[in-house]
Amino acid sequence: MRIAIDAMGGDHAPKEIVFGAMDAIERIGNLQLTLIGDEAKIKPLLTNSKNIDIIHTDEMITGEDEPVRAVRRKKNSSLVLMANEVKKGKADACISAGNTGALMSAGLFVVGRIPGIDRPALSPTLPTIDEKGFLLLDVGANVDAKAHHLVQYAIMGSIYTEKVRSIKNPTVGLLNVGTEDGKGNDLTKKAFTKLKEAPINFIGNVEARDLLDGAADVVVTDGFSGNVALKTIEGTAMTMFSMLKQTFMSSIKTKIAAGIVKSDLKGLQGKLDYSEYGGAGLFGLAAPVIKAHGSSNRRAIYNAIKQACHMIEHNVTDTIKTTVESIETEEREEQ
Amino acid sequence: MRIAIDAMGGDHAPKEIVFGAMDAIERIGNLQLTLIGDEAKIKPLLTNSKNIDIIHTDEMITGEDEPVRAVRRKKNSSLVLMANEVKKGKADACISAGNTGALMSAGLFVVGRIPGIDRPALSPTLPTIDEKGFLLLDVGANVDAKAHHLVQYAIMGSIYTEKVRSIKNPTVGLLNVGTEDGKGNDLTKKAFTKLKEAPINFIGNVEARDLLDGAADVVVTDGFSGNVALKTIEGTAMTMFSMLKQTFMSSIKTKIAAGIVKSDLKGLQGKLDYSEYGGAGLFGLAAPVIKAHGSSNRRAIYNAIKQACHMIEHNVTDTIKTTVESIETEEREEQ
Repeated sequence: MRIAIDAMGGDHAPKEIVFGAMDAIERIGNLQLTLIGDEAKIKPLLTNSKNIDIIHTDEMITGEDEPVRAVRRKKNSSLVLMANEVKKGKADACISAGNTGALMSAGLFVVGRIPGIDRPALSPTLPTIDEKGFLLLDVGANVDAKAHHLVQYAIMGSIYTEKVRSIKNPTVGLLNVGTEDGKGNDLTKKAFTKLKEAPINFIGNVEARDLLDGAADVVVTDGFSGNVALKTIEGTAMTMFSMLKQTFMSSIKTKIAAGIVKSDLKGLQGKLDYSEYGGAGLFGLAAPVIKAHGSSNRRAIYNAIKQACHMIEHNVTDTIKTTVESIETEEREEQ
Repeated sequence: MRIAIDAMGGDHAPKEIVFGAMDAIERIGNLQLTLIGDEAKIKPLLTNSKNIDIIHTDEMITGEDEPVRAVRRKKNSSLVLMANEVKKGKADACISAGNTGALMSAGLFVVGRIPGIDRPALSPTLPTIDEKGFLLLDVGANVDAKAHHLVQYAIMGSIYTEKVRSIKNPTVGLLNVGTEDGKGNDLTKKAFTKLKEAPINFIGNVEARDLLDGAADVVVTDGFSGNVALKTIEGTAMTMFSMLKQTFMSSIKTKIAAGIVKSDLKGLQGKLDYSEYGGAGLFGLAAPVIKAHGSSNRRAIYNAIKQACHMIEHNVTDTIKTTVESIETEEREEQ
């Protein structure tokens, strides 16, 4: 398996990216990595040069760059060169912790879509209270989604969840303002009808309140609402941790208690750390493209590489392709 | 001030509703309350009959009732009779902790809209880390909002926040997928342009991640995304509290620590308790209509009554009316 990695993307690049790559080489068999970025910065971090190539470039896309323009103009940026490796067939998948919008643009315009898929979906796996996790898609690749996009998300999400996360016949829920049939806005009402007919295990509407309770294995929504849900989970959790910290630091008494439960609270924080599930897949592209979180450490990068390997091994892209083709054939035959 | 209250709505009705009403009568001057519901159940709970009337009815709208149909058919339900009191001019405001959809229907079809306001907005005040709180609208009254609805929400929210919450020149943010200008879906892009021209203190886009950090005093969004944000906050906070409880109950060591910080953690929970800010106002109706949380206790009901009193005293409805009229006049003159 050959994976191209943007070594310059993310808050802790290139250090944590390179370290994560080294961990993967050590632990995962049959792996060839290509790190793209500033060779002078990458090389000193390598503890092993086996199965690792470097493609040198000075150019970078930053978090401040306007995504579409950056991908068009910065042809030699680590992110664009990474996507090129996939396009040229020199890599089977690629990973970046950099500018999310730029990665989506490079995915769309360089790697390209699976024929039949109208819009790719950005799809993180988020934690649940039972630690099983759920896939949320889309969280922002397509902010003006149509009902048939949501059906394609449901199909892609089900295939990924079954193949990579080994959950048989995964349940699919539609994010909505209530659980009853017939609830929602124009989009979700239309999507509900279409999802009922799709070749998935659709269990109906789910409410945002029940997401972390594991209401469904796969939750589909338009990119705007998905982005709101994802960022609200992040923001609420962060706020609560910071309030908890304040509470524990408020007196000698509470500081003593904090000392006692420190490791347990770290465990709690770990349960909510979704980098354990890898990065967010950009589903619907011609090869696995993974967006690792901007704050990724070596462990998160390692997990993202492992995730890309699973997607390659289990032919997720091909399965999505043939499933979408067979549905299209069926629809043609019905007409 | 005369306020009509649905004594039968909510998880703890009529007990906590009546107790909250008694507290309000005791503490707020110049108050006349009308409780609507089952007299046989309400009367024994009264500790004082001064300034309290009861309108008896056996009929109720439950949480399972389909809202629009229930309001049309259950003409003698406590919720519809409550709205009638306002319509007939016998009450200046009304409050229910019952079926949210039914209250919105009764608000729209019985109490009626302010002329010029196209859609009412359901508007809770949510907690922030600095305990100032922020107003989020709409959280589900209008799930297919247009850009000009969001502008009306911004105006109504600003007036409420300035008059009732005493925040001068409140900041207004547009909930969006990024903070940069030009971000978003069709709706938010259009709304952004219109909000810049509106007579409010518009500070641009805010992300869901920053809501509890107090990104803005008033945050406007369509009812679908607002509902997702609200319920995600609730769900994430609930999940974290339950994980925290699990953590503290996991061993003798952690149980000891829990004993030490018990009251401090209660304080933390209190900070996130948004019933302290009253109920969710249904802004844009011809009189203040307040939706108290379904799980309201006497304190939440008392706070909702106080909130209704503030809205009456500060002429929130009239101010919205004249502001909307003056904008319409300006727009006509410009044409």
